[in-house]
Amino acid sequence: MRREIKQDRSRLVDAGMGRIPCDLTIKNIQFFNVFTGEIYPAEVDVLDGFVVRVRCEGEEALLPSAREYDGAGNFLIPGFIDTHMHVESTLMIPENLSRAIMPWGTTTVVTDPHEIGNVMGVDGVRFMLENAKKSKLRQYVLAPSCVPSVPKLEGAGAAFLAKEVGELLDTDDVIGIAEIMDYVGVYNNDTRMRTIIDEGLKRGMYLQGHAPAQTGTPLNAYRLGGPRSDHESQSTAEVMQKLRMGMYVNLRGSSLASQVQKLVDGFKDHRFTDFVSVCTDDVHAKDLLCEGHINRVVKKMIECGIDGRDAIKMATLNAAREYKFDDLGAVAPGYVADMQLVQALDGSRPVAVFAAGELVAENGSYLGGDTMGESYDFANTVNIPQVTCKEDFYLKVPEGHTGDTVTVNVITRTPGVFARYFVPTELPVVDGHVDISGHKDLMFVAIANRYGSGDFSIAVYKDLGFDEGCYGTTVSHDSHNLTVAYRSVDDAYAVAQKLKAEGGGFCTLRGGELTCVGLPVAGLMSQDSCETIAEKVEAVQEVLKAISGGRLQSVLCLSVLALPVCPGVIMTDRGVVNGDTQEFLSIFA
Amino acid sequence: MRREIKQDRSRLVDAGMGRIPCDLTIKNIQFFNVFTGEIYPAEVDVLDGFVVRVRCEGEEALLPSAREYDGAGNFLIPGFIDTHMHVESTLMIPENLSRAIMPWGTTTVVTDPHEIGNVMGVDGVRFMLENAKKSKLRQYVLAPSCVPSVPKLEGAGAAFLAKEVGELLDTDDVIGIAEIMDYVGVYNNDTRMRTIIDEGLKRGMYLQGHAPAQTGTPLNAYRLGGPRSDHESQSTAEVMQKLRMGMYVNLRGSSLASQVQKLVDGFKDHRFTDFVSVCTDDVHAKDLLCEGHINRVVKKMIECGIDGRDAIKMATLNAAREYKFDDLGAVAPGYVADMQLVQALDGSRPVAVFAAGELVAENGSYLGGDTMGESYDFANTVNIPQVTCKEDFYLKVPEGHTGDTVTVNVITRTPGVFARYFVPTELPVVDGHVDISGHKDLMFVAIANRYGSGDFSIAVYKDLGFDEGCYGTTVSHDSHNLTVAYRSVDDAYAVAQKLKAEGGGFCTLRGGELTCVGLPVAGLMSQDSCETIAEKVEAVQEVLKAISGGRLQSVLCLSVLALPVCPGVIMTDRGVVNGDTQEFLSIFA
Repeated sequence: MRREIKQDRSRLVDAGMGRIPCDLTIKNIQFFNVFTGEIYPAEVDVLDGFVVRVRCEGEEALLPSAREYDGAGNFLIPGFIDTHMHVESTLMIPENLSRAIMPWGTTTVVTDPHEIGNVMGVDGVRFMLENAKKSKLRQYVLAPSCVPSVPKLEGAGAAFLAKEVGELLDTDDVIGIAEIMDYVGVYNNDTRMRTIIDEGLKRGMYLQGHAPAQTGTPLNAYRLGGPRSDHESQSTAEVMQKLRMGMYVNLRGSSLASQVQKLVDGFKDHRFTDFVSVCTDDVHAKDLLCEGHINRVVKKMIECGIDGRDAIKMATLNAAREYKFDDLGAVAPGYVADMQLVQALDGSRPVAVFAAGELVAENGSYLGGDTMGESYDFANTVNIPQVTCKEDFYLKVPEGHTGDTVTVNVITRTPGVFARYFVPTELPVVDGHVDISGHKDLMFVAIANRYGSGDFSIAVYKDLGFDEGCYGTTVSHDSHNLTVAYRSVDDAYAVAQKLKAEGGGFCTLRGGELTCVGLPVAGLMSQDSCETIAEKVEAVQEVLKAISGGRLQSVLCLSVLALPVCPGVIMTDRGVVNGDTQEFLSIFA
Repeated sequence: MRREIKQDRSRLVDAGMGRIPCDLTIKNIQFFNVFTGEIYPAEVDVLDGFVVRVRCEGEEALLPSAREYDGAGNFLIPGFIDTHMHVESTLMIPENLSRAIMPWGTTTVVTDPHEIGNVMGVDGVRFMLENAKKSKLRQYVLAPSCVPSVPKLEGAGAAFLAKEVGELLDTDDVIGIAEIMDYVGVYNNDTRMRTIIDEGLKRGMYLQGHAPAQTGTPLNAYRLGGPRSDHESQSTAEVMQKLRMGMYVNLRGSSLASQVQKLVDGFKDHRFTDFVSVCTDDVHAKDLLCEGHINRVVKKMIECGIDGRDAIKMATLNAAREYKFDDLGAVAPGYVADMQLVQALDGSRPVAVFAAGELVAENGSYLGGDTMGESYDFANTVNIPQVTCKEDFYLKVPEGHTGDTVTVNVITRTPGVFARYFVPTELPVVDGHVDISGHKDLMFVAIANRYGSGDFSIAVYKDLGFDEGCYGTTVSHDSHNLTVAYRSVDDAYAVAQKLKAEGGGFCTLRGGELTCVGLPVAGLMSQDSCETIAEKVEAVQEVLKAISGGRLQSVLCLSVLALPVCPGVIMTDRGVVNGDTQEFLSIFA
């Protein structure tokens, strides 16, 4: 249920008629009008956080405003709107995200709290909504639609069916259903997807799609099922087909995927581009610090041949209209005064940013005056009673097995291909457990359910990318169970104990030394600032590079091992599964 | 409350996947895509009235459809949407309107039942909604906002305050508030307007504006008050300013006003025109028969320099998005299959029209198969107990007046100027009433309340346009009281009796012969077809031309004498008023 932005229209009318003064006038600007595409000199009057009037040359103010701001001849454009992002991917809590991205000109985000939803359920979503209110950024939420990704294959902290999604949709600031990832479920009329989507349809709410690599018949059938948008396109053909079908294409420039040229080629010759908007999906703290947020994608679009006026309209008015916002995405009478002053229409960092008429950033510095003061006391969500000693990390041979060796279905993959497969490999047995000490290219991976179920699985991977030390994390999509890769059970136990103590995070061990990013908020986020998080992540990544000979660059290197909607052999807390058939497989041949 | 268009998405998905066959495939077309602006060969599959798929060249149907239609190489475009019209102006009831306009390619109209609202209140609006369902045209209603136009000055059949408007807004197919005409009330924060608008705002519904000749400060303040659109622009500057403010400009091509070039000049050089749509407002039966409906405005826009692709998008997708329709205004998967085949993108009459996938017209002939069978029995709404004999039409001098003459404030106007003014004129008194027999340029006008209040006023007009015979009507904006212009009380009484017997209409009397268009539906509409109405109106207009020496051309020549929101001297059933000050004036000097 979208929260109406409270507005005293009588006061706005009075200010418009010159009966009462405005709070603020921004003078000396070149106004970019997203409704018409025109650029002209103007002054903007603001009252109570709303635009009262954009006065063109020759239109004098009826009364002087309480304050003036000199636009110094810069362009005034609306604040950017991110049509799809996961706050959790920044590792920041929502209030700190605000402080990091507003200096880049973003004033509204539509978020999918999918990760915390998997860990903490509806309560997690409510935390994100509540915490967002502590800062100036307008943060709307979509109700996660696929929690967990595949119910029978993994143990998550919550399960959302139609009831939970409906409950969220009736919550303030929840404005639709988030990326409906189970596209196969949609075009197969699967009951879980059908009933969840119907919750959105019956309320007339926004249905966000997710159709990676889909075209033709399945894409069309997916669209018929309800979802209206997509941000997963990787090819020009996908973008073209989705737009032709009337899907909103949220052009993505994330930290993980950034094929902007291919996407832009899908519409750059079109006469109409009303259905293109911009999103970041997953963006890391360091990228936010160094390159920006939506402005960074705008800049890339322009580099790829899109006119700056069009790119800015896509990142503002188009996004607002996609969500049926009547009061965001433009600087016009009655609209929320979310706006930015920029030196050029090119996606570079704004000179000044206003949120609801308040100056919140200048030249990259956050001025919102709401810097986080308190440290929150979060419940530790890492509940792993099954991990009590280092021996728990041994891969034990099946009961009754005899002999000095055992044939293990080692999980591997071809370089450059995502899907993994089994290679049956004969390995020594020592004291009833598998010994990989003679195989430098093998690692154990353990996945421990961290919601108290006690589930725990161990498998052997080949060519995981490193062959010394140990790495563990609770950021493990989508159930975010404790995932540890190791050669020595001592190391694994040490890393597990550290992550348990921190309440989750990323943790490396090398030469007896633990390096950790603690993520005590649901094992996914930290209360640290963007700068501190970027530094800590960098420290862990330095260790990862060292133990992998440079092959591992990212703290997320283990984070999609346990996602059973992916193709090929996948591991969850319940065992090893075939992602294509959704059947369990045996670790031993 | 918008009625959700019922849709079995599971069946659409099944058809999309080729599990069940579609009802219809339209083959051999050039598809104009309103999302992208592209034109390409395609085939369109339909099931249950919805588009299942638009297949491009090389995409074969998965199953053959039950029926095929040969598009003969024509362009397929969406059905047109009229963003603002009054059905009453056509003199047809809603079901017959459908049959008249669908052959021209219009498949959806958003109507303002303002006239019947003034006569019959909420019941009248409900009649329009119910009757509309008898035909194939999608007719949505906006709740009239200004009934009556000025409460204290006139006697109407109903009064809408916030309560009545709120009740209508909670009715199926009522999707917003209709043209908020009292713009002065809006920018002055008048209580009636403020409380009515708030009913729409609190439901998040569409607020239709009406701001003729408004620019600058008052226009801006009007927009701040809530209204989002306007269809009243008469100048290029108005269109430019309204678009810059983010108002939807409903480009109007009505039977009364058709300055399309001036309006088009307000945006034809703009980079973005997403906020331009098309409407007809008031259109007469004969124009519908001969020239068309929305297609006629599209044609004019193109003649004025707009690209046909842009004009068609404005008349389809832009209109749908203005109303936040997700399933109208485009031919795309999941959209209602409202579409038309045209030989060119130029606004000429379509070759074929489909509504919800059903062929409803070919080459101008209606094929909907729902031709009106029954004649409805409407209550006679002409209740004039104060008219009992011809003597009632005498203008009696004030009691106590003595002498052979009296000075009457004769109402006149300067040619070409709308506002009328008083000219005190000495006239003979015969048997206690004013005698104009010696003044060929004078006429009496009587306005009789027709809702049983008994109010009745008589005044003298100069240069009304005719000097013999008599003309009367119940189509008299906005209260639609019985309005009669006459020189002889015998004539006036005869015309009044005829209109009472017919339940309203237009009626002339010349040489003892009555010529009448009976409008028994609220004294505003007829059950006749468009053709019959056009013929009957033509007959009355022939008489009007004859008695006026060609000066009067239209049956509506008396229809705005009694509208007290107009400037200058206005007459209502309660007397003569100054429209500017809203004060009553004396008929005698």
